[in-house]
Amino acid sequence: MMTGGTPLRSLDEDELLRRILPAFAPTDELLVAPGDDAAVLRTSERTIATTDTVVLGRDWLDAWSSGADVGRKVIAQNLADVAAMGGHPTGVLVTLVADPELSLEWVLDHVAGLAAACADAGVAVLGGDLSSAPPGVVMVSVTALGRLDGEPVLRSGARDGDVLAVCGSLGLADAGLRLLRAEAADRMPEAVAHQRHPQPPLAAGPAAAAAGATSMLDLSDGLLRDGGRIARASGVVIDVTGAALAPDVAALTGAVGAEVALDCVLAGGEEHSLIATFPAGVLPDGWRAIGTVRAPGEAERPTILVDGRQVSHTGWDHFRDA
Amino acid sequence: MMTGGTPLRSLDEDELLRRILPAFAPTDELLVAPGDDAAVLRTSERTIATTDTVVLGRDWLDAWSSGADVGRKVIAQNLADVAAMGGHPTGVLVTLVADPELSLEWVLDHVAGLAAACADAGVAVLGGDLSSAPPGVVMVSVTALGRLDGEPVLRSGARDGDVLAVCGSLGLADAGLRLLRAEAADRMPEAVAHQRHPQPPLAAGPAAAAAGATSMLDLSDGLLRDGGRIARASGVVIDVTGAALAPDVAALTGAVGAEVALDCVLAGGEEHSLIATFPAGVLPDGWRAIGTVRAPGEAERPTILVDGRQVSHTGWDHFRDA
Repeated sequence: MMTGGTPLRSLDEDELLRRILPAFAPTDELLVAPGDDAAVLRTSERTIATTDTVVLGRDWLDAWSSGADVGRKVIAQNLADVAAMGGHPTGVLVTLVADPELSLEWVLDHVAGLAAACADAGVAVLGGDLSSAPPGVVMVSVTALGRLDGEPVLRSGARDGDVLAVCGSLGLADAGLRLLRAEAADRMPEAVAHQRHPQPPLAAGPAAAAAGATSMLDLSDGLLRDGGRIARASGVVIDVTGAALAPDVAALTGAVGAEVALDCVLAGGEEHSLIATFPAGVLPDGWRAIGTVRAPGEAERPTILVDGRQVSHTGWDHFRDA
Repeated sequence: MMTGGTPLRSLDEDELLRRILPAFAPTDELLVAPGDDAAVLRTSERTIATTDTVVLGRDWLDAWSSGADVGRKVIAQNLADVAAMGGHPTGVLVTLVADPELSLEWVLDHVAGLAAACADAGVAVLGGDLSSAPPGVVMVSVTALGRLDGEPVLRSGARDGDVLAVCGSLGLADAGLRLLRAEAADRMPEAVAHQRHPQPPLAAGPAAAAAGATSMLDLSDGLLRDGGRIARASGVVIDVTGAALAPDVAALTGAVGAEVALDCVLAGGEEHSLIATFPAGVLPDGWRAIGTVRAPGEAERPTILVDGRQVSHTGWDHFRDA
C-alpha cells in the first residue's frame, strides 16, 4: 500500500470529496450529479448493469501499477462488460475501501485515472462511497450502467454454422504480466501497458450487436475459458483455428518465447478484447474470424477445441487460484 | 470473521454462484438475470443510482449481527437512499470481498438476508462480484438503482416557511448499539433489532415527493448532521422543536437513561428513517412535524438549531471517527 505524503485519515470525508468530485466531468445523461442521497441518470427502456472489484495484492501490485493505472483498468473492465452485452456505457459508481494510512496522493492519482477513462468513454460518475478498512487493505469496486438500444447479446446464442471472431488483441495483458514478473518490462512495453490499463474496443460491442452477433463476451479469463462459457451456454462446439492465432502468438514470441506466447493467447486473462459469434458471412469492421461453431456430435458435450482437439488450460478463479 | 464449517476457498466461483444465485427471486423489471457479462433492467426515463459499503469490524461485529442481519441492513441503507430521492427501488448489485477462510455457512445466511430484504422491497438482484481479500477482511458493497417517476427531491430545496418532518423512528439504532456495547440487549430488543436490520419506510419517499416535499434525506448520520446538510444545501435555518422529540426521547429513556436518549435522538446514525421539508399545511400520512424552516437572519449562517439554540453534537465520519 502506498503511504507517505498525506494520509487519508488527515482529511474528513467532506474534505476528501471536495478534492475528488471536481475530477469528474458531467455528461448529458447525468441529471443529478453525486452529492445528494443518490444521483439521477437519464435512461431509456433497458439499462445494463454490472459490477467488478479490484483488491490490492490480488488484482494489482503498487510496484507495477500506479494509482491512475488501477483507476483506468477498473473502469475499462467494467465498461467492457457493458459493451459485451451490446450496450453503450453511460455511468459508473465507484467505491474505495482503504486503510486510512493510504496516501492521499495515491488516491488523487487513482481518481485522475478513473476520470480519464470515464471521459474517454463519455461516461458519468454517478456516485461512490468511501470507507475505511483494516491495515494494508485497499480495494476499489465499480458498478457500470449502460444503455441498451436493441436486444442484449447473450453468451447463449451461438449457433451451428456461426463464425467465432475477436475484436482486439489476444494474450497481450498476460504477456505483460509475465514480463513484469520477470522484471523485463522493456522487452515489450505495449504488453505491459495493456496489462496496466487495457483499452477495450467499447464501440465494437453495440456495433456487433447491430450487425447480428449471436453471442458475445469480453475476454476476462482467457480465450479458452470464456469461449468455453459460450460453448456450454449455447450448447455448441466451438473449434478455434490454430492458424488464425499465429499472428497473435508471433507478436508475443519475441518477448516471452513461443510456448509462453501460445499460453498467453489461449488462456491469458484480463485482455478485455471482445469475442463474439456471427452468422456465416457477417463480420463487422475490426473483427477477425478465429474459429467456427458447430452442433455437438453424438455423445459429444459442448466445448471449445483448437484444431479439433481438446486443449488443457487453466483460467483465473478468484477463490481457488490464490 | 466467522470461520468453521466449510471455508469459501473449498468451492470454485461457479460452484459458489450455483449456491447463491437461486436465493434471488426475479422481478418483472429484470429482463436478463445475472450470469452473463451483465444484467438488463427495464427502466424508464430517469434512474436513481447510489452505493454504500459495509466492512466487518467497522460497520458490524459478528458477535452482534448474523450474516442475515448484515445482508438485510446493507440492502436497507441503500434502498433508503433511493427512497429519499423520491424513487422506487428496482434493483441492486452486491459485491462480497472476503478472506477465503470465511465460512460458507455465514455467506449463505448473509445471502438469505440480502434476498429477504430485496423480496420485501420488490427489488431484483442484478449482479455482483466475488473477490478474495487478505486474512480477516470481509466487506459487502451494494449499488442500488431505482425508478424516478417525477422530479428528484434534493437536499437543497428547503424554503422559508416549510415544516421539517420525520417518517419513522429517531435514535433507535443508536440506542440499540449502546445496549449491545453494554451487553444489555434485553433492555430494549426493539432498539437492538433496529440496529441489526433497520426497516426504512421506503414507500414514504415517493409518496412524500408526490405530496410536494421540498427536500428529503434518509437519516444515516443523525438528525442534527443530516438536518444540517439540508440547511446548508438549502441556505436556510432549520429550527427543531425540542418538545416534538420528547416522545422519541421518552421511548428510549427506560433503556439508556434520559441524557443518552437525547443524544441518540439528536445525533444517532444508521436510523434510515426519512426527514423531509414540506410547505406549511402539507404533511403526508406517516410523517410528523418536528421543526420549522426559516431564512437566515442578517449575519446568520445556514444551520440547524434546537429550540433556537446551537447544539453541539458529533456525527459519524468514516475516516476520522475510526
